[in-house]
Amino acid sequence: MKFSPLVQELIDSLKCLPGVGAKSAQRMAFQLLERNRRGGSKLAKTLAKAMTDIGHCQQCRNFTEEPLCEICQNPKRQLATKLCIVETPGDVIAIEQTGEFFGKYFVLMGHLSPIDGIGPDDLGFDILIKQFASGQFSEVILATNPTVEGEATAHYIAELAQQYQVNISRIAHGVPVGGELEYVDGNTLAHALAGRKAYEI
Amino acid sequence: MKFSPLVQELIDSLKCLPGVGAKSAQRMAFQLLERNRRGGSKLAKTLAKAMTDIGHCQQCRNFTEEPLCEICQNPKRQLATKLCIVETPGDVIAIEQTGEFFGKYFVLMGHLSPIDGIGPDDLGFDILIKQFASGQFSEVILATNPTVEGEATAHYIAELAQQYQVNISRIAHGVPVGGELEYVDGNTLAHALAGRKAYEI
Ligand SMILES: [Zn+2]
Ligand SMILES: [Zn+2]
Repeated sequence: MKFSPLVQELIDSLKCLPGVGAKSAQRMAFQLLERNRRGGSKLAKTLAKAMTDIGHCQQCRNFTEEPLCEICQNPKRQLATKLCIVETPGDVIAIEQTGEFFGKYFVLMGHLSPIDGIGPDDLGFDILIKQFASGQFSEVILATNPTVEGEATAHYIAELAQQYQVNISRIAHGVPVGGELEYVDGNTLAHALAGRKAYEI
Repeated sequence: MKFSPLVQELIDSLKCLPGVGAKSAQRMAFQLLERNRRGGSKLAKTLAKAMTDIGHCQQCRNFTEEPLCEICQNPKRQLATKLCIVETPGDVIAIEQTGEFFGKYFVLMGHLSPIDGIGPDDLGFDILIKQFASGQFSEVILATNPTVEGEATAHYIAELAQQYQVNISRIAHGVPVGGELEYVDGNTLAHALAGRKAYEI
């Protein structure tokens, strides 16, 4: 004996969410069905729209439903000479909240991770190289996470960037090593940015 | 600075899932957008369908997309003289898997919980009383969880049931007190069922 086909299908579909196993999915399904159908229907609608309408910003790869994200559309930012490279959209928000950076971003949407099959082709390096080649940027700030993978990714990008006329810096390791950038408090992050130093390959 | 409006809306919608806070919702949104759009679209479709099509079985209140659930549709069960009352659809599955019970069920979809505003009207007691009054059942087995709320709910139902010609039993406390029924192994649950005793009001 199983749940009804549609209930079972709902439970199975919920398991596509990261960190959600069979028991959590079951609890979520029952909770939505029994106590929050309105929230469930709203989620269904938003999710369908998001999966089709959200793409990547043509310049920085951040998620956006427009061709260019809000930051890349900003006329003040279009003249920026600093390019800050981060792993996730959450990192952009964290750095913006320090109020210390007014340049542009490039969002890798991850880090190099051979174990997960994530290589240079998955991180938009082709677009990144075009940014380097454009001549707009005098400095590239490597703001990947201070983890093993983040360091490896920073190193890889530094090697790419040194072929172009740009200074390469790495945010200072004021951020706790092994931690994740977007969980660091704004003050620490502001210090890490201010204390950045030339990248030594 | 925020995420793009649609990304933010997706994150907010995901927070309607139980146990999902702001950070988890963000991680889920990015994961779906970046690595599993297909899974996200499938979830959206199933969720929309589930929220509108899944209702309650007219006889036992279990979730089903048909007027009657599979068990209530089963001709062999329609003659059953035992009615087993449980809190959740997961409990039905757990008891079915013991292979020791061939009667019918009634699914409360929760338990009495004044703190959460869940009273008799929310647990389908009107339908339950009709089952008692039908004269079909010679025994009512109270299989709510052995928690404070589960015991209180069992007591409440026993008082309702004693006005009708039915024997009232409670599953044996072989199941760990304070635990939740659906997480108990089948063997323990089978013993708990076999060792049920007359309910003393
Ligand atoms: Zn952009
Ligand atoms: Zn039923």
